[in-house]
Amino acid sequence: MKKIYLPLVAIALICISAGNSTKDYSGFTDSQAQLQRTWEGKYDSLLNADEIGSFIKFLSAHPHNLGTVHDRENADFILSKFKQWGYTARIDTFYALFPTPKLRVLETIGQPQFKAVLKETPLKEDATSGQTAEQLPTYNCYSADGDVTGELVYVNRGVPADYEELERMGVDVKGKIVIARYGGSWRGIKPRLAQEHGAIGCIIYSDPIDDGYYQGDVYPKGAFKNETGVQRGSVMDIPLYPGDPLTPGYGHVKNAKVIDRKNAPNLLKIPVLPISYADAKPFLQGLGGQVVPDNWRGALPITYHAGPGPVKAHLKLEFNWDVKPVYDVIAMMKGADHPDEWIIRGNHYDAWVNGANDPISGQAAMLEEAEAVGQLVKQGMHLSRTIVYCAWDGEEEGLLGSTEWVETNAVELQKKAVAYINSDANGRGYLGIGGSHVLQNLANEITIDVKDPETGVSIAERKKAQAVINATGKEQKELMSANTMKIDALGSGSDFSPFLQHVGIASIDIGFGGEDNGGEYHSIFDSYDDYSRFKDPGFYYGVTLAKTAGRFTLRLANAQVLPFNFHDFYSTVNEYATGLIKTVDEMRSNTETTNKLIKDKYYTLANDPTLTYIPPLAKEPVPYLDFSALQNALAALKTSTSQYQEASHTALSQPHAVIDKLNAMLYQTERQLLSAQGLPIRPWYKHAIYAPGYYTGYGVKTLPALREAIENRDWKLAQEQEVLIAKVITDYAANLDLATGVLKEK
Amino acid sequence: MKKIYLPLVAIALICISAGNSTKDYSGFTDSQAQLQRTWEGKYDSLLNADEIGSFIKFLSAHPHNLGTVHDRENADFILSKFKQWGYTARIDTFYALFPTPKLRVLETIGQPQFKAVLKETPLKEDATSGQTAEQLPTYNCYSADGDVTGELVYVNRGVPADYEELERMGVDVKGKIVIARYGGSWRGIKPRLAQEHGAIGCIIYSDPIDDGYYQGDVYPKGAFKNETGVQRGSVMDIPLYPGDPLTPGYGHVKNAKVIDRKNAPNLLKIPVLPISYADAKPFLQGLGGQVVPDNWRGALPITYHAGPGPVKAHLKLEFNWDVKPVYDVIAMMKGADHPDEWIIRGNHYDAWVNGANDPISGQAAMLEEAEAVGQLVKQGMHLSRTIVYCAWDGEEEGLLGSTEWVETNAVELQKKAVAYINSDANGRGYLGIGGSHVLQNLANEITIDVKDPETGVSIAERKKAQAVINATGKEQKELMSANTMKIDALGSGSDFSPFLQHVGIASIDIGFGGEDNGGEYHSIFDSYDDYSRFKDPGFYYGVTLAKTAGRFTLRLANAQVLPFNFHDFYSTVNEYATGLIKTVDEMRSNTETTNKLIKDKYYTLANDPTLTYIPPLAKEPVPYLDFSALQNALAALKTSTSQYQEASHTALSQPHAVIDKLNAMLYQTERQLLSAQGLPIRPWYKHAIYAPGYYTGYGVKTLPALREAIENRDWKLAQEQEVLIAKVITDYAANLDLATGVLKEK
Repeated sequence: MKKIYLPLVAIALICISAGNSTKDYSGFTDSQAQLQRTWEGKYDSLLNADEIGSFIKFLSAHPHNLGTVHDRENADFILSKFKQWGYTARIDTFYALFPTPKLRVLETIGQPQFKAVLKETPLKEDATSGQTAEQLPTYNCYSADGDVTGELVYVNRGVPADYEELERMGVDVKGKIVIARYGGSWRGIKPRLAQEHGAIGCIIYSDPIDDGYYQGDVYPKGAFKNETGVQRGSVMDIPLYPGDPLTPGYGHVKNAKVIDRKNAPNLLKIPVLPISYADAKPFLQGLGGQVVPDNWRGALPITYHAGPGPVKAHLKLEFNWDVKPVYDVIAMMKGADHPDEWIIRGNHYDAWVNGANDPISGQAAMLEEAEAVGQLVKQGMHLSRTIVYCAWDGEEEGLLGSTEWVETNAVELQKKAVAYINSDANGRGYLGIGGSHVLQNLANEITIDVKDPETGVSIAERKKAQAVINATGKEQKELMSANTMKIDALGSGSDFSPFLQHVGIASIDIGFGGEDNGGEYHSIFDSYDDYSRFKDPGFYYGVTLAKTAGRFTLRLANAQVLPFNFHDFYSTVNEYATGLIKTVDEMRSNTETTNKLIKDKYYTLANDPTLTYIPPLAKEPVPYLDFSALQNALAALKTSTSQYQEASHTALSQPHAVIDKLNAMLYQTERQLLSAQGLPIRPWYKHAIYAPGYYTGYGVKTLPALREAIENRDWKLAQEQEVLIAKVITDYAANLDLATGVLKEK
Repeated sequence: MKKIYLPLVAIALICISAGNSTKDYSGFTDSQAQLQRTWEGKYDSLLNADEIGSFIKFLSAHPHNLGTVHDRENADFILSKFKQWGYTARIDTFYALFPTPKLRVLETIGQPQFKAVLKETPLKEDATSGQTAEQLPTYNCYSADGDVTGELVYVNRGVPADYEELERMGVDVKGKIVIARYGGSWRGIKPRLAQEHGAIGCIIYSDPIDDGYYQGDVYPKGAFKNETGVQRGSVMDIPLYPGDPLTPGYGHVKNAKVIDRKNAPNLLKIPVLPISYADAKPFLQGLGGQVVPDNWRGALPITYHAGPGPVKAHLKLEFNWDVKPVYDVIAMMKGADHPDEWIIRGNHYDAWVNGANDPISGQAAMLEEAEAVGQLVKQGMHLSRTIVYCAWDGEEEGLLGSTEWVETNAVELQKKAVAYINSDANGRGYLGIGGSHVLQNLANEITIDVKDPETGVSIAERKKAQAVINATGKEQKELMSANTMKIDALGSGSDFSPFLQHVGIASIDIGFGGEDNGGEYHSIFDSYDDYSRFKDPGFYYGVTLAKTAGRFTLRLANAQVLPFNFHDFYSTVNEYATGLIKTVDEMRSNTETTNKLIKDKYYTLANDPTLTYIPPLAKEPVPYLDFSALQNALAALKTSTSQYQEASHTALSQPHAVIDKLNAMLYQTERQLLSAQGLPIRPWYKHAIYAPGYYTGYGVKTLPALREAIENRDWKLAQEQEVLIAKVITDYAANLDLATGVLKEK
């Protein structure tokens, strides 16, 4: 379900020529590196763009959302392919709550009179768009049932800052229905916040300024959302926990005990419905009240007002609350040396409708990868560790397939999993990459080795160029001179989340995009016709994804010493901590300034007195927090990483037994980053460094327990969490010392 | 013709309570200050909001553009009022070229087929909007005649940066017709740049994102531009010289020698026409080519493309090229002590149509001021210097009335004028004030003394509050703690320009606005109905303008020692110079960076290769310039201002003869800022510190000759101009030393 938003932050790269030397193969001896390079060359030559196109066409030929015949047929197809390519493959079946629409009514009460169409119009230019009988209606999955009528309020993105702005305008959403535009947060945040503020219903629409004619010509002339397009999507409260709402924290296998749906903490209490901009326009036109701030306005040819009313909305929704089977396809290629060390590679295959882009483009690249890897093994490549390919079902509803699988197999995974490599929707453009920072160095080694198909430079160089051109001033200069590509931290929005954040498996997420913008996301127009015209014509970036992800799989599978780099991890976490400490100082200074502005009546005096304006209330001053535990922990980690770094130079020349012992310790390090109690109010998330933000959804929060306590101005909690995080890091450092000890033993 | 854009720069204020002490009356002895305060109190009580409303209603009752019967009737009305109030008043008649439309055709050739309506639709809610027979058609005055057909290109604002962007997109406007949106520069820049780039015609339209429903509800429901509204306006090349194009630099009195229209350097060679957004939409819809950058897009419900074509435009314009009389109403109240020291106060009275806001709101406030001043004199106020009220004609076409008057009377004005105080359109909101910085201290003394009618605090405090709230970070903190209100530098756009920039008379320009936004500017909807609903209901800001401008008039007329503050002038010019030196350093660094980005192919690599993109060419490195002459001149000025400041403490206790001699020297100082040769390529502008920008139009460029040479990367010219400006400042300082000498003589 992931939509790639290109990160505009912290990306840079080595401007050396693409790595033709074996120095770029960390964890390999020179001779093994030479061999690995040869196999990777063969690997590349086995990848076929046309076949990727064929996979995409076949798997997206019909709507195939969770629980449909076509979804099961795709699973069987994938299963048969894995078997054909030499894998031991099976389908693991789970179960999950999956509501689908029974009744959807949305209309205005008042002027203008309007009943929403709630249907996307099929196009003759898009061959599969007319499969209306097989398409899921436009809806937000896990909306509550409801029949509500109330004055409408426009809440912009529906994020916390927007509710503060509404407070300034004297607008309350209690007892009202809110209309929010997509974007600026994960969609599930919008109805949750509406509910928290007392709204009785929520409408979400795609504004053409974000996703329509403002961005470019609309489909089918261009790639952008036309006036009937609707973004479906889940509104399960994933930041609380993903997976089946009825089995929080454990796998929903056959006959598993389930909680009552009414008690599922990650389900909404209010109805929510996504609509097109054609459907949204009359509702927005019916609003009076103040004209909204400039950055709230969209591209409809109207004046955007906040309301409330005078127009009212009547929203009536009923769902079939079925439990459906979830089919994960699992394929294994056993490693000759370390069969119980698993390199896991996954991509989901379920879609909201036809899903040519999301997720089939990524799935097809993974299949192409798996086929080629199978070929290499047949051709005699020695596979050291076990590779596990996973085609996930039910990702769109809330990472159902991957979460239930991880929860069910947690013990085995924590024992065996070396790393998890994820992809999802993929398209033309620039590399997007995020993950555990122990894998950052490996990411650097791989991405200077893969060529961008459009420009011929490495994908790392192209990514750097894009980052440099989009930066300004000091940041631009830093990016130009940087010789390391920084990878992003991971939040949520795809299947890496349970691996990384629930059971502590070092993960990486890879995709290309940025030149593939369009409005097809989660609509009937995410089709083969759309994909092959606008997303990745020729499927060259499918090949590039296979080259990149395949290298992760193969290097991790064959490295003699696992190429985990702890210095990258230390320096990244140290940056997070330093930044957070600075943030507190800035909050203190800003709070002082704002309180002075309030006290001296600047807000009131600057305001137009003919408009309602309620000045903000003074906030409590920001205290000085004690960050010493965290700072000492990081100092210890710095020492430990340096010592390991130094000792590790001898690793490749150590006896096998030592190397084996070392590797087993290395891939367990990420587990050390889990805290037993998990995050405050959402213990499913156990990683102390990375989590999706409670108020951003997909967007990451690093050092989440501490950062969110600070953002919520809960100083007591912040201080407690600071100590807990420091303990995690201290233990992690001590664990690393043990690995160093192994190298020094003899 | 001025449209007030609220400056978001450099504004701050004394947070002391409004000045009830005589300390705030610079140039007055304590006893004289007491007396002056009493008269100002009486003055305030004579100002009547209802009468201002009546003046506005009467003077805007009919369209009254230059050359019409109603224009002349208004002149006669104003003349009779001045006489009635005790002034010696007359009409000074000049002549000027004034083209009006004979034929206007604009249509598409291609798809969509469309012929532009070119008419504003009268509204029943606006009583005067139906006076269609008396209204000037929608046009740009001083467009060339023409009959052109060509592919259309959308050029955004049509400013230099936009043509650079078009070059990146590989789009050339040569032989094409451009369509530009209003805003981002003075309108006259758009056709001039189009012409410079080889375009054969220019269309200018009001995009609803700037001036329409995006901003707020449209007229008559709200104040903003509806789909038929059109902004008329002059496209004379005012940055070259204002006034009658046929008499550059001298007054067009009866039988004056005129140049051939074909040779007038400030007239365009291509046709240009302003249109509504309803008329613009089909033209923009007909464009193909690349989608334009985000900050080029407007709020029409279309995808904005650059073109060229495929749609073509056919533009045919013919004008009556008449020479019309220009009637300036001049009213004098002779000063008892110094009849040959003139305080000149002006506001134009001509309009494009009814002009209730522009300019009648300012004219009405000035008339109210003049009436009250007349009353004070009748009640026995001793008037020391002569006050000259000027109601200008023909401002809209290019400051015709004021420029011809100043050019004709240059010698007498340079001898007698102490200062010029200007106003123009006025409305509800915050103080906007700009002028010669020797008057900044006076502006501070006055603006803490006048109350804002909405909030009860001083207009200075309210202005400060608005500036503080709109600033962020360091700037905000500086503004909060600042205890001086900085006034803006003046560019052009109203009648102060010939006084300040052609003959060197210290000037000030005052107006209120920011809560009066709307779309009536230069349209048939700039009416009494619109004004009294949306611009200044109750006319309270008319009274506030009269209070503020009247205080300038009265204090300058009665001060014993003229309240010119040279330290303010020095520190302001020093800031300009320091900023400019920093600008050159930044240009150098940016040029280095850009050249590196070009050399290392960052632009090419970051770009989507399926789109045309032509990377910029490397620029010559920015040399180090010698700023020492300017720096030494400023050091000398600093010394001179300090010495004068110190000596001036004794001024009020000096014999009359000394004070008289001093005053005569003081008001001549601004003349010293003129350079004999004027600015490069536009010698009409002679002020070395302030000028409108050659590529911005109204927007000011300080230290213009040097700044524009730097901006144009003409390093040789910059070095020459640096020396010339340094000479002007050195002479100015020497002149100030003479004034100091007068005080030390005895």
